[in-house]
Amino acid sequence: MPTISKRGEQMPSSPIRKLVPYAEAAKKKGIKVYHLNIGQPDIETPKPVLDAVRHSNFKVLEYSHSAGNESYRRKLVTYYNRFDIQLTHEQIIVTTGGSEAILFAFMACLDAGDEVLVPEPFYANYNGFAVEAGIKVQTITSHIESGFALPAMEDFEKAITPRIKAIMICNPNNPTGYLYSREELEVLKQVCLRHNLYLFSDEAYREFCYTGEHFSAMNLEGLENNVILMDTISKRYSACGGRIGALVTKNQAVLDAVMKFAQARLSPPSFAQIAGEAAVDLPVNYFDEIKAEYQSRRDVLVEMLNKMPGVFCPNPGGAFYAIARLPIDDADKFCQWILESFSYEQQTVMLSPATGFYATPGLGKNEVRLAYVLNKEDIRKAMICLSRALEVYPGKTLQRNGSVLLGEKH
Amino acid sequence: MPTISKRGEQMPSSPIRKLVPYAEAAKKKGIKVYHLNIGQPDIETPKPVLDAVRHSNFKVLEYSHSAGNESYRRKLVTYYNRFDIQLTHEQIIVTTGGSEAILFAFMACLDAGDEVLVPEPFYANYNGFAVEAGIKVQTITSHIESGFALPAMEDFEKAITPRIKAIMICNPNNPTGYLYSREELEVLKQVCLRHNLYLFSDEAYREFCYTGEHFSAMNLEGLENNVILMDTISKRYSACGGRIGALVTKNQAVLDAVMKFAQARLSPPSFAQIAGEAAVDLPVNYFDEIKAEYQSRRDVLVEMLNKMPGVFCPNPGGAFYAIARLPIDDADKFCQWILESFSYEQQTVMLSPATGFYATPGLGKNEVRLAYVLNKEDIRKAMICLSRALEVYPGKTLQRNGSVLLGEKH
Repeated sequence: MPTISKRGEQMPSSPIRKLVPYAEAAKKKGIKVYHLNIGQPDIETPKPVLDAVRHSNFKVLEYSHSAGNESYRRKLVTYYNRFDIQLTHEQIIVTTGGSEAILFAFMACLDAGDEVLVPEPFYANYNGFAVEAGIKVQTITSHIESGFALPAMEDFEKAITPRIKAIMICNPNNPTGYLYSREELEVLKQVCLRHNLYLFSDEAYREFCYTGEHFSAMNLEGLENNVILMDTISKRYSACGGRIGALVTKNQAVLDAVMKFAQARLSPPSFAQIAGEAAVDLPVNYFDEIKAEYQSRRDVLVEMLNKMPGVFCPNPGGAFYAIARLPIDDADKFCQWILESFSYEQQTVMLSPATGFYATPGLGKNEVRLAYVLNKEDIRKAMICLSRALEVYPGKTLQRNGSVLLGEKH
Repeated sequence: MPTISKRGEQMPSSPIRKLVPYAEAAKKKGIKVYHLNIGQPDIETPKPVLDAVRHSNFKVLEYSHSAGNESYRRKLVTYYNRFDIQLTHEQIIVTTGGSEAILFAFMACLDAGDEVLVPEPFYANYNGFAVEAGIKVQTITSHIESGFALPAMEDFEKAITPRIKAIMICNPNNPTGYLYSREELEVLKQVCLRHNLYLFSDEAYREFCYTGEHFSAMNLEGLENNVILMDTISKRYSACGGRIGALVTKNQAVLDAVMKFAQARLSPPSFAQIAGEAAVDLPVNYFDEIKAEYQSRRDVLVEMLNKMPGVFCPNPGGAFYAIARLPIDDADKFCQWILESFSYEQQTVMLSPATGFYATPGLGKNEVRLAYVLNKEDIRKAMICLSRALEVYPGKTLQRNGSVLLGEKH
């Protein structure tokens, strides 16, 4: 039998999905599982967005332009204009989800053996795309104590080697929820200019900012040829299944190269491009309600977490994720145990161990990521479950006097 | 400014799309262009398939399972059963078009530096996916004189080196239209078993066979662990824009590896999975009419081509492509010239130079690919244009005595 490739072996399993069998087993036992583990929002996809597809009346489901329908790209120009991002439609290549935008950027800008520098914790699937592209993710650690703020410029200077060709951020951040400030982006600009690096900016959660305005890497003056924006309609319009994203840059050589990758796979999905185009026409206040909803969920989640003995959760500035430090020995064990061996009033909660979001071994061992994609009532119930679980978990590290045994060390 | 990657430079441009600016210029001059250059069928997507999407009533456009909706995969099992292919739904991974199935197979089975052996002429985008995966396409030449039949076993034996890890075929073939016989597939089986190779079988045109029954590589007994089927709904149901395909194999290690690639990109498009699922429920005789239509188009095309002085076009057994040898000096020049400098009654025709489908330099220089994706009346008009063009083309190689000057040599 022929063997699979080394790349196939090296390809990481999804750290989020490996707990799925335990959740399924819990459900079979009649236990209700609150899913705070994945970024699948429960928010309804806006009706006009779905209706645009449902009312479409073409006769042939044709390939679109490899860069996406021109009408959609022109519409996206008006979308970006709202954020003072000035573009032409030819600077936008519509991709199959944000995922493909990331893969295309890796492939077009980096060669096998090159490296991309990412603040950790980071979106774990960057690892998968790196393996596909034969490149390596190097990390620079951000810390829960500072709410996962951007590491200092000196730390970047120390981390940069000749193999590093790009810095990559997710802003606001998945998994930390941290919203990078304009000042932090200016630091990145200096570093990228000094070392001639690309800046890959994943801005999937642009609209969901609670502690300030979003500042896009596309607005860094003088960095136009270095910045590549990865975008997606998945979270913005609760349209994850559409698989429509975009790669945006003013660097013509990158556009030309990415276009060749886009042509090889022929076109992005046609149905969801119709949805994406309709989404740009939603009233501008569409996000007000959604943002207020996420913000109030965040408030409930973070407040309840920080009231639990030994728990610390910095208040996230954007997206819909938070990372909390728990008084536990091992987040992977805990997240499995809470599904497999625990329930409270026939309920439990599914969380993501933060270890999957760090590259440095040992980091995140007492941290979990929580996605606040459920309504507030469910979040409250989930937090009650978590609180009870922390009281009885065999690997708890909280002492009777309130001090934490091991947790702080990790 | 940071530079693009070597991979980005090596990535081939689409050989089909490079003539697009000339076609656009012709249209601006008021010339009607018959598009025989791309595999975008004019056949309407079946109404029940589009209606399934239009009548869908979900509220949230969610991620599907990374392997595709289970209901769709179970439906695909019944589809494959019609061809005596026995499977479980867990042996099917739904992909974003057939394109992604090809990329996943390359990535999961081959490492950088490995090679895949493909009979040429071949679908040019295999080159693009090979560059993405860091692998190399090696070719074994099939010949227009034999209608592009599979090269002999001895030719395969000569072509196989330790770097070759897989043989890849497209059956029926794009770009030649050749339908591989069961006997030819048995030859491939012997070669694959002897050298422990994967057999990648792209069967996008399975339903469109005119000269015999389709025999799937999945039905090669004893080769179950070597065969990977790449499939797509694009041509089958004239649903190219859906971007739904599938990777099918009985090799569990490959399924496990491919699943990790599938998880990294989260899920295939949701809308078109609904379309694909509805398509399996079309009446089984749905293809009778479509196939009869393509076959009658083929008959018109091939007959008219072979009546032109100095032209030879073998009769294709399947798909909707034909390769014709023309009495011309250079197919690339000719295909540009016919758009740029020729028209007959304000009409012209767009063809694909066959050079783009060969890897061996010089081959295909007097051959073009024609996709019979237009109605018969348009095909007739296009053939009249082509016939007139061949009379006046400055690089024509046909002499007054009927002999061809250079064409046969290439």
